[in-house]
Amino acid sequence: MNRQITLAARPVGFPQESDFALVETPVPEPGPGQVLVRSHWLSLDPYMRGRMSEARSYAKPTQVGEVMTGQAVGEVVESSDGRFAAGELVVGQLGWQEYALARGGSLRKIETRLAPAQAYLHVLGTTGLTAYFGLFDIGRPRPGDTVVVSGAAGAVGQVVGQLARIAGCRTVGLAGGPEKVADLTELYGYDVGIDYKAADVNAALKEACPRGIDVYFDNVGGTLSETIFRRLARGARIAICGQISQYNLTEPELAPRNLGFLIVFRAKLEGFLVSDYAHRFEEGLTRLGGLLAEGRLTYREDVTDGLEQAPRAFIGMLRGENRGKTLVKI
Amino acid sequence: MNRQITLAARPVGFPQESDFALVETPVPEPGPGQVLVRSHWLSLDPYMRGRMSEARSYAKPTQVGEVMTGQAVGEVVESSDGRFAAGELVVGQLGWQEYALARGGSLRKIETRLAPAQAYLHVLGTTGLTAYFGLFDIGRPRPGDTVVVSGAAGAVGQVVGQLARIAGCRTVGLAGGPEKVADLTELYGYDVGIDYKAADVNAALKEACPRGIDVYFDNVGGTLSETIFRRLARGARIAICGQISQYNLTEPELAPRNLGFLIVFRAKLEGFLVSDYAHRFEEGLTRLGGLLAEGRLTYREDVTDGLEQAPRAFIGMLRGENRGKTLVKI
Repeated sequence: MNRQITLAARPVGFPQESDFALVETPVPEPGPGQVLVRSHWLSLDPYMRGRMSEARSYAKPTQVGEVMTGQAVGEVVESSDGRFAAGELVVGQLGWQEYALARGGSLRKIETRLAPAQAYLHVLGTTGLTAYFGLFDIGRPRPGDTVVVSGAAGAVGQVVGQLARIAGCRTVGLAGGPEKVADLTELYGYDVGIDYKAADVNAALKEACPRGIDVYFDNVGGTLSETIFRRLARGARIAICGQISQYNLTEPELAPRNLGFLIVFRAKLEGFLVSDYAHRFEEGLTRLGGLLAEGRLTYREDVTDGLEQAPRAFIGMLRGENRGKTLVKI
Repeated sequence: MNRQITLAARPVGFPQESDFALVETPVPEPGPGQVLVRSHWLSLDPYMRGRMSEARSYAKPTQVGEVMTGQAVGEVVESSDGRFAAGELVVGQLGWQEYALARGGSLRKIETRLAPAQAYLHVLGTTGLTAYFGLFDIGRPRPGDTVVVSGAAGAVGQVVGQLARIAGCRTVGLAGGPEKVADLTELYGYDVGIDYKAADVNAALKEACPRGIDVYFDNVGGTLSETIFRRLARGARIAICGQISQYNLTEPELAPRNLGFLIVFRAKLEGFLVSDYAHRFEEGLTRLGGLLAEGRLTYREDVTDGLEQAPRAFIGMLRGENRGKTLVKI
C-alpha cells in the first residue's frame, strides 16, 4: 500500500495536525511515459502554507482531499520512460507520500558523489537556487556591502549568508532563539547573529551595520522588516523571498506602513520566485555544486523520521522550531 | 519690513495654525554674491510636513523659530551677483517670506513666454520633474500598460497621468471627492477616475484594470496601497513618490503587511527623490516645456491670496482640500 498525507481541511490561522490526514491507497502502476518513484526524503517548506489556502497566489491551491504537494528525492521502482531505470535516484514534485507517479520529464536524476541525496532538496536544489538568484539577481551585492538576512538560519537563509560572505560582504543574520543564533556565526559564517526574540533589534542593527544595510534578504516580513527598513543605506536593495511571519494570520492586516523610508533611502524592494529563473538553474546548480565541492558551503538539516510525522514537522517549522532545513525521512 | 512665516512649534499629528508664526523683520541687504528677491508665488508641498518634524529623513528639519522652507518665484530687487539684475524673474528655495536673500548659484532665471511665472513651481518645476523621472525612470511604462496613480489630482499626480497617457498607457487615477475625480477624466485625461472615499476601491480597480496594474505611482501610501497591491500585474513597477496618508500620524504604525503580493506578482517597489536626478533636470524641463508648448499638458492651480494664509492653505492641502497645485500668491 501507499501511504499519503492529504489536506483534510483548510487551516484557519496556524495549521493543526487535524488539517492533515494519513490515508492508504494501492501503490499505482506507471502508465505510458510514467515513472513510479519510492520517496526517501521529503522537503518541507513555508510556501506549502500558501497551497493550503484558497487565497490568490502564484500557484493553484491544493484541494481538500488531495495529497499535499512537495519536492522529494527517491528511487525509481518501475519506469515506462526509457530515460529512467529502476534503482536510479531522482528528484521531483512527488508530494507527501511514499510512492508517486511522475512524468519522466518532470524528474531530474541525481548522483550522490558530491553530497547525500537529500542535499538536492536544499543546498543543491530549490532552496539553494532561491538563495542564489534572490541574492545575486535581486540583491546585487558588491564586496564591502552589508547584507542582512531574516530567517537567517532557515533553509534559504543559511545559504544566503554563506554566499554573501563568499561575495565579500559583511553579513548579519536574524534568527529566533540562542541555538539558531549560535549557528549563524559558528556554522554559517555570519559576522553577526541577532536573536530577534531577545534583542532590541533596532539597536543591535545599528551596532552591527554602522554604514547601514545595503542588501536585505527577507524571508520573514512584518514588524521585523519595519525595523530593518529604518536602518537601510542609501540605494538599498530588498529581495522579498518569503513573509513567514504573515502566513498564519487569520485577519487581513493593515497596509504597508513605513514605506516612506524607501523614499528616504531611495531603496528598491522586489519580490521574486525561483521558478522564474528555471532557464538558469544549471548555472546556479553548477556554482552551488562547485562551492560545496570546495568545502566552502555547509548546511544543517533538521530531520524528522516517518511520513506520518510530516504534519507535526511542518507545523513546527512554521513556528520556527526547526534548526536548519526541514526534511522528513520516509 | 519683511513678513515671514516661521515654525512656531513642532506639530503633533495634523499641524495647527498655532504651529506657525507670522513675524516681521527688516528687509535684508544683499552681501557679496547675494541676490535679494521679492517673492510673488510660494509653492506648498507635502514634503514640508517632514521638515516640521525631527524624525530622520533625507533633509535636515526646519528648527523652531526658523522660516519655513519652500520654493518660490519672484523678482530680483537688488543683486550683488553680476549674473542677475533687478527686475529679472527667478525661482529658488526662498522660503515662506516676502523677501529672501539667496546665493546667485541657487537661483534659476525664468521667462514667461511659455507659461506664467508660477508654472515654474509646478509643471515646469520640481513637481513636473518629479512626475517625469518617477514615471519614466522608476515606473518605466510601455504603451498599453495600465498605470494607476494615487493622489492623481494633486500637483504631481495630474502631471503623471498626462505623461502616462501621452506614453500610450491606460491611466487610472484615484482621488478623494467628486470635484477632484471629475478633474481626473475631464481635465487630465485619465481613462478612469475613482473616488477612493466613496468607491469600493478593490472592485473599481478590478473593473478599471482587467489585466492588472503594470505601474503604480504612489503619492499616498497606507491602506490605499494595500488595496492596489492586490491588483498588480506580473512584473509590476511601483514608484513611491510620497506617503501623504502617513505624514500626520502620531503613533508609529505597524509594519508592511501585504508585501507578500510583491512575491506573487514579482513586483518591484522603489522610493525615489527628484533631487537625485538634478543632472538631468534640463532634459526633463525641455520635455515638459515642449509638451506644454504643444498644448498637450494642462494643469490646475489652487491659489490662496496672501502670505499670512499660507499655514491655512498648507493644512488644507494635507487634508486633501486643494484642487490642483497649491500656491500662495504673495
